Amino acid sequence: MLGRVNHVAIAVPDLGAATASYRDTLGARVSEPQSLPEHGVTVVFVELPNTKIELLEPLGADSPIAAFLAKNPAGGMHHICYEVEDILAARDKLASGGARVLGSGEPKTGAHGKPVLFLHPKDFHGTLIELEQV
Amino acid sequence: MLGRVNHVAIAVPDLGAATASYRDTLGARVSEPQSLPEHGVTVVFVELPNTKIELLEPLGADSPIAAFLAKNPAGGMHHICYEVEDILAARDKLASGGARVLGSGEPKTGAHGKPVLFLHPKDFHGTLIELEQV
Repeated sequence: MLGRVNHVAIAVPDLGAATASYRDTLGARVSEPQSLPEHGVTVVFVELPNTKIELLEPLGADSPIAAFLAKNPAGGMHHICYEVEDILAARDKLASGGARVLGSGEPKTGAHGKPVLFLHPKDFHGTLIELEQV
Repeated sequence: MLGRVNHVAIAVPDLGAATASYRDTLGARVSEPQSLPEHGVTVVFVELPNTKIELLEPLGADSPIAAFLAKNPAGGMHHICYEVEDILAARDKLASGGARVLGSGEPKTGAHGKPVLFLHPKDFHGTLIELEQV
């Protein structure tokens, strides 16, 4: 079921400082910041040869990463996104195995305009997993 | 400086259960467990098309992931490893920019038999970064 690692998401309290670290200190190519109000985040992509890192900063009052940053004020690795070919088939197989899909269980349109789902970290050893249909 | 994401490491309290999740529930190819006493971990590799996940379970009394699991008993994302061409050049550039290298500052031989260094998570927005010379 799991395909490529589409991205690893890192939540940070200060997107400008984090972008500067990855660009200037670590010497990586970074995108311009993109505000995604419907997702409650501003994102910068760190482009690597085989995958990308998403630096996420909260945007707005109900950001889905606010609670994570309250618990981890310095920031930290937030989730990992795997590509799947068929997100509904993946969801149904996972649900039949007892894994919990967050929210309504219906895919939403993710930050890349593709259907995504999140799986409960308690079912995956503390890791928040995003599935994205590509 | 940063090259490919070599792996994302996930610390887990029960390697057998985590391996079963990735193999059976998530449908990924997984390796046999490998005990690495000199690194204080037992590792299973989850092989994906563009990178790999390393599932880590503590091994022995002084495991470097014991403190992380004490803080995160269910497990969690532990570090991300980037490939670099020249680890000494990378270290010197990072140090000149004020970033702290963990330990003695000299590369050690990592789990893949290649020279590795770890960077202080406080200098990188809460993310523990491993650099591996490939």
